[in-house]
Amino acid sequence: MSAKTDARRDALRTSLVDIAERQISEAGLGALKARTLATEAGCSVGAIYNVFSDLNELTMAVNGRTFRRLGAAIEADLADVPEASPQERLVVMSVAYLRFASENEHLWRCLFDLRVTELDAVPAWYRAALEDLFAMIGGPLREIFPDLSATDIALMTRALFSSVHGIVSLGLEQRISGVPRPQIERMIELILSNLTEQSAAV
Amino acid sequence: MSAKTDARRDALRTSLVDIAERQISEAGLGALKARTLATEAGCSVGAIYNVFSDLNELTMAVNGRTFRRLGAAIEADLADVPEASPQERLVVMSVAYLRFASENEHLWRCLFDLRVTELDAVPAWYRAALEDLFAMIGGPLREIFPDLSATDIALMTRALFSSVHGIVSLGLEQRISGVPRPQIERMIELILSNLTEQSAAV
Repeated sequence: MSAKTDARRDALRTSLVDIAERQISEAGLGALKARTLATEAGCSVGAIYNVFSDLNELTMAVNGRTFRRLGAAIEADLADVPEASPQERLVVMSVAYLRFASENEHLWRCLFDLRVTELDAVPAWYRAALEDLFAMIGGPLREIFPDLSATDIALMTRALFSSVHGIVSLGLEQRISGVPRPQIERMIELILSNLTEQSAAV
Repeated sequence: MSAKTDARRDALRTSLVDIAERQISEAGLGALKARTLATEAGCSVGAIYNVFSDLNELTMAVNGRTFRRLGAAIEADLADVPEASPQERLVVMSVAYLRFASENEHLWRCLFDLRVTELDAVPAWYRAALEDLFAMIGGPLREIFPDLSATDIALMTRALFSSVHGIVSLGLEQRISGVPRPQIERMIELILSNLTEQSAAV
């Protein structure tokens, strides 16, 4: 393939990810349709499938951006509190997660709405982005629980992420938890302070 | 309306909930369609809307059953351990929740997939069923944290439910947490033991 063709493919690829990102951000993953994508990108529907194998792969690319923006948002908040204890850092990260989720609700839900049935279908770069996020949690946890094995730290990282995710996810849906936003933050603090205020009860 | 017409309406209502429950159980909420419901119930599409205002109301009725079955499953497991401490009861309830979710995955996800935009759209009986579930968690929590106010117990109940829900929900989706089932149980125990092994760190 010529360099010129490559450049054209790359431009279409970027343009499609831009458009899909905006469409998901405005109306959720359910609103993503090949036809409207093609119309907005000024290409044929077939051209989409020349650069992405299916809409799942395109959505993955959008999710990759969302993961990176989420990571950057958390890191920016952490940079504001260089003196924070590991416990405080976990709270700062969780509140940053809550804010990112509420400000980017459709894009954030899309990270979880995309059902991938086979684990192998998840590209390596996607799993790496997830591992980067988990690593940000693992750091403070190792400081709080210095005696835990690497396996238990990994398990606790996922348990803690899942817990905060559950509180944020149900909290943002008024229907289930039915609590106002400051109470969601207090729930996170309640769980995290109880979880981390002892040295090791595993 | 005559008693005979009432009885006929009730029979159609029950029959539609039965069919919808089976369809959701087999293929998820996304598969629920008025036309296939009508075909299976042997009625017209219009007849569905004589007994339910829309498919949301029908889905609510299915969810009501699921809530009651979930409550019964948890109570049955609790009845097996009459001597358990409040901490142990919370673990038993959470593991029962995990098992129910994995054995009834589509029906269980449907409890959360049904997006209700206005809080008022949630019928009183639905909220009562939810409160019954929360009350089961509140009992042991009050024993563990006797000094907490009713408001804090309510908040902790929701925080704890949301945490366990997050672990179960992401845990059952291999993609995100990528851990086998026994590890999901261990994550629940990890969170719950850390959360409840001290008298009050709120």
